[in-house]
Amino acid sequence: MSTNVLRTNDGWWVVRDERAVRVQTKAVTTGELLADRDAVREAAASAESGTPVADLVALPPVTTPCRVVAQMVNYRSHAKDSGFTGDIPATFFRKASGSVSGPHDTIIRPAHVKFLDYEVELGLVMGATLPVGTVVEEQDLPRYVAGLVLTNDVSARDVQLTKTQFYESKSYPTFTPTGPYLALLEPEDFAHLLNLRLQLSVNGVSRQDRTLADMIVRPAQALTLLARFQTLDPGDLLLTGTPGGTALKAPPKAAEKIAALLPPALKWKAFFKGQAKNPKYLRNGDLITATIATPDGRIDLGEQRTPVTDAA
Amino acid sequence: MSTNVLRTNDGWWVVRDERAVRVQTKAVTTGELLADRDAVREAAASAESGTPVADLVALPPVTTPCRVVAQMVNYRSHAKDSGFTGDIPATFFRKASGSVSGPHDTIIRPAHVKFLDYEVELGLVMGATLPVGTVVEEQDLPRYVAGLVLTNDVSARDVQLTKTQFYESKSYPTFTPTGPYLALLEPEDFAHLLNLRLQLSVNGVSRQDRTLADMIVRPAQALTLLARFQTLDPGDLLLTGTPGGTALKAPPKAAEKIAALLPPALKWKAFFKGQAKNPKYLRNGDLITATIATPDGRIDLGEQRTPVTDAA
Repeated sequence: MSTNVLRTNDGWWVVRDERAVRVQTKAVTTGELLADRDAVREAAASAESGTPVADLVALPPVTTPCRVVAQMVNYRSHAKDSGFTGDIPATFFRKASGSVSGPHDTIIRPAHVKFLDYEVELGLVMGATLPVGTVVEEQDLPRYVAGLVLTNDVSARDVQLTKTQFYESKSYPTFTPTGPYLALLEPEDFAHLLNLRLQLSVNGVSRQDRTLADMIVRPAQALTLLARFQTLDPGDLLLTGTPGGTALKAPPKAAEKIAALLPPALKWKAFFKGQAKNPKYLRNGDLITATIATPDGRIDLGEQRTPVTDAA
Repeated sequence: MSTNVLRTNDGWWVVRDERAVRVQTKAVTTGELLADRDAVREAAASAESGTPVADLVALPPVTTPCRVVAQMVNYRSHAKDSGFTGDIPATFFRKASGSVSGPHDTIIRPAHVKFLDYEVELGLVMGATLPVGTVVEEQDLPRYVAGLVLTNDVSARDVQLTKTQFYESKSYPTFTPTGPYLALLEPEDFAHLLNLRLQLSVNGVSRQDRTLADMIVRPAQALTLLARFQTLDPGDLLLTGTPGGTALKAPPKAAEKIAALLPPALKWKAFFKGQAKNPKYLRNGDLITATIATPDGRIDLGEQRTPVTDAA
């Protein structure tokens, strides 16, 4: 059974039902908390009645700076949305950890961004160093992955597509809402990962709703591929891709092949002219809600409620 | 006049001509050294005769982990090589700082990489925090940039082009030879940046040779654009792009437009079949030499000598 941990500006808490018990720890960073698992266990086993969760302001349970790595196109449904056919090479990119924000913080659209999109994603929080060259088998996952968090990989599509590199478009401050809970897993919880269901709604209308069964490169394989070149440390975060249902959808293949014949500036002008009619991009005043949980509640990462606003 | 600093496994040194004087400092990281500039000044002013530089083994003068950010296509000559026409959007990507290696360390080609390429680049080492939203004017550069280093942005072209995101292809261990010197600049040195000449040879044959006058987005503007989304801290590293002359050259426009009509797997198969005849990619036993300096020697980042070897 997983243990949900919440962070506030004065410390760490274990959440049980609607109440939270303070963790007696000096840990400041997520990595330090993961090194003090005994304190978490003590809080989880405590007889204290605790504080109503509703009275606490949840900060992202992943502290920064840390490494934030993300997987590109990693759900079959999203690959279809994005116009991919055939094999998709397993690909990683970085997000600035300065983009990490709280689970109820406002997402701020920079003034130059016209096409703001959402991507609900499961985040893996590392519990041990992953040296370059590590091969992670399914049964090794509990050794490297301490827990899970709910994230939203907010994306400025006009920046992303015109620049080709995803880094800037996904790194503006508030572009990685994270939390509310860091669900610390027991080894037996890992057998339930594929039952996790990712859901995201905008203004109460469902946009994304899939389970991890739709995932292409699963966590153990993803860590093996990442460890070909990248070391990770405790507290680092890997976002594992988003399912179908984002605002962005690739144009039909025929249109894409015609567009490929145009100079890039003209190609993107035509593309975004079409996208301007797409009502799904995020707008000032929208409210995004997102959850990730197994149907039986064995793993439940809580709910994000993030309003969207234009930069002042 | 700039001051050249060198790092060894037991500390920091100021280099004058062929000799090095130890810096009396407890600094371990580059950020810590930059906070102890008085100790550097004392060593620079010391009457000690010092140790022959030839007797010291230079480590990269940028310690890791740190942020390593890089600019995509940032010299006109490289843009031409890469087949870019018209405006190029200023674009950043990340490299894993685990790729940073010493100025005389061997570059190791991973077994799955067939097309290994070099990119000599000027590295800016941050001396102050750059918060998101900072606007850096030319005259502000000395406040943010503490010094310069010579770097090689080694690139696995087959990984880079097929995955589209540059992160993995440029992040394998030994893919960012850095040093030998960290040249700490005085404010008056910044007026000489455009005179810096970047040179790289393979087995004694010149491949890259340009000055910063060929650069598209210059340092102050680059930091302003980066600060739209990314915070930097002292000791972080920004690679500012490479001039023309890499092994990779884009195919003619007509061939590219035909290739765009093919499925990606076929397109890359055809492209790399052509590249296999290109003798410029790095091979086992090659020796890369690189320098960056002004003609008058006012700024001289030293010489890199990095052999290339296949992974065992």
